[in-house]
Amino acid sequence: MEYNLNKAQLIALDWGTSSLRAYLLGTSGSILEERSLELGIMHVQRASEETGVGLRAAFEAAFEQACGDWKAGAPLLPILASGMIGSAQGWCEAPYLEVPFDIGSLGGHLTQVPNAYGRAIYIVPGLIRRTGLVNVMRGEETEIAGALAMRDSAAFTGRVLIGMPGTHSKWAYVSGRTVEDFETFMTGEVYAALRTHTVLGLTMKYSVGSGRMGEAFDRGVKIALSEAGSLGVLSNIFSVRTLGLIGNLDPEEQPDFLSGILIGHEIRALASLHSHFHISPKQTDDSIVLVGDSALCARYRRALELNDKDGVTTIVQAAARGLWQVATQAGLISPLTIADDMIAREPYHVK
Amino acid sequence: MEYNLNKAQLIALDWGTSSLRAYLLGTSGSILEERSLELGIMHVQRASEETGVGLRAAFEAAFEQACGDWKAGAPLLPILASGMIGSAQGWCEAPYLEVPFDIGSLGGHLTQVPNAYGRAIYIVPGLIRRTGLVNVMRGEETEIAGALAMRDSAAFTGRVLIGMPGTHSKWAYVSGRTVEDFETFMTGEVYAALRTHTVLGLTMKYSVGSGRMGEAFDRGVKIALSEAGSLGVLSNIFSVRTLGLIGNLDPEEQPDFLSGILIGHEIRALASLHSHFHISPKQTDDSIVLVGDSALCARYRRALELNDKDGVTTIVQAAARGLWQVATQAGLISPLTIADDMIAREPYHVK
Repeated sequence: MEYNLNKAQLIALDWGTSSLRAYLLGTSGSILEERSLELGIMHVQRASEETGVGLRAAFEAAFEQACGDWKAGAPLLPILASGMIGSAQGWCEAPYLEVPFDIGSLGGHLTQVPNAYGRAIYIVPGLIRRTGLVNVMRGEETEIAGALAMRDSAAFTGRVLIGMPGTHSKWAYVSGRTVEDFETFMTGEVYAALRTHTVLGLTMKYSVGSGRMGEAFDRGVKIALSEAGSLGVLSNIFSVRTLGLIGNLDPEEQPDFLSGILIGHEIRALASLHSHFHISPKQTDDSIVLVGDSALCARYRRALELNDKDGVTTIVQAAARGLWQVATQAGLISPLTIADDMIAREPYHVK
Repeated sequence: MEYNLNKAQLIALDWGTSSLRAYLLGTSGSILEERSLELGIMHVQRASEETGVGLRAAFEAAFEQACGDWKAGAPLLPILASGMIGSAQGWCEAPYLEVPFDIGSLGGHLTQVPNAYGRAIYIVPGLIRRTGLVNVMRGEETEIAGALAMRDSAAFTGRVLIGMPGTHSKWAYVSGRTVEDFETFMTGEVYAALRTHTVLGLTMKYSVGSGRMGEAFDRGVKIALSEAGSLGVLSNIFSVRTLGLIGNLDPEEQPDFLSGILIGHEIRALASLHSHFHISPKQTDDSIVLVGDSALCARYRRALELNDKDGVTTIVQAAARGLWQVATQAGLISPLTIADDMIAREPYHVK
């Protein structure tokens, strides 16, 4: 532990709605320690309401709980956070930056958090598209910064479509280092709501293998990508019930099948992104990168394969790497370490 | 009350998942009395589980509670029910009939319910499409029978698209008296789940006018029908949050706006129904009839108008009329009354 703190360069926080991931990062952004806590801003808000403690004090308490020992052991370490922590409901609001935006300059737009410790605590801003149907992201901009740093730079010379599956999936067109535009799909949250709060959940059963991706997933994806998919999500999902009713879909398969229908529809919609963003298909090289949880990315990679998109790359732990990149851009990391980093070009270690 | 029972010809039950509507019908199917009770099969199942009373006994108790006085006062009245009461989870399963199906012959396929009263209690079967993505309906077949009887017969010479908005909306192509094919959209249930169990509900507020259809509804429909709609429901619904975030959509408007997006997507999908059902667009006359709750039908009529479909007819109380039609087909109504009906052609009275 002390050994880690001696080598530490940054406390990096990926602080979202439902969870907080805290990283102690060392030379070149290597992960010395990693902690995952159920201290998302939703939990902190609730704690503040229940105890009557002010919201700012509740965030300080959560931060103390997550990495008070790191803070105490290495008082000079800079602290950088990304995600919903920078929203109006978070610790301190970090105003959105508008796309198109050069992700390499994120470090020049950090918001400093007033805090009781007299410490340099910073928050990365999110991105916004104000035209048309407004869109926002918080946290994913940092994952994009990480993904750009982690992937072979040659592969990023053209335009890349970066998909970040999750509760609210984001798809961003990135050209060079510039995030041109992006879109959100509420796939993960809709899946949870349908499973838990509609008639579709009533016939579902869970077994040892539940959660594993199987044939039922493929079947769901294929429906979404087929001519029947043109009837839309609201119609297609009813087949979970009807196929189950006639004994053509086992209760244990139904969650996987529903996941396939929803993710399939998200993939189907990607074909419309070009025109929606006013980007000519010819301008893109159709290179797709997935960033996020590996099991969830595997579902998306499979759905993309079924839509004839092969050669998709998956990148994990992009948030920690992105926070390192942004901290470096912002001059939060000591120059010596950066020099080391530039000379050594160490591979990125993931525990 | 006794006066009503003297004139009564049929106890008609529209018995669904969440509610039970009981009608005492008189000459020509006029509604003498109407009762709406929270005794849907879902409630009866729960009562059966909680009290330990068998399911059949629980249904008999619910029936007794709903119209025991009618039954006691007029022991010879036939009883006919439609809806989820005929499902495997209902009082007695009435096997599905396959489309295409002549709705005029529903009365020849009733299922008799074994019961403790020694009474003629019958259930109308639902319809099923077994090909492709399987689809089912229970109750709507009876509403279709009612709608065909209630609308000017001349208007039904061609093919008609009948929409039945609700928790699970149904759209059926009906040619003459034949239900050719139909599709389901889980619009109502998805709306409730999104509003109550996702982040979209968090910023919604309700005021005195909530539930009224306003400009926000139109705005939602237009998004679904626009080029942005090609990104699909999973993406479009996120605009409830983002437009709210930038102060471009009031919290009080958000439920109406979400309703517009979802109903708009259902209407958008209708354009794909022809090819999905392998029906040539030329064969249809594009005549659309809406059947159901008048406030909900008004939303659908407005969404259809915004999609350049005018002249849509709305029919209410189709279930009661449909049950009367089916009972007549089945010979449950005394011949004298039918003769009266044929001669008099009384207009249908809705209280």
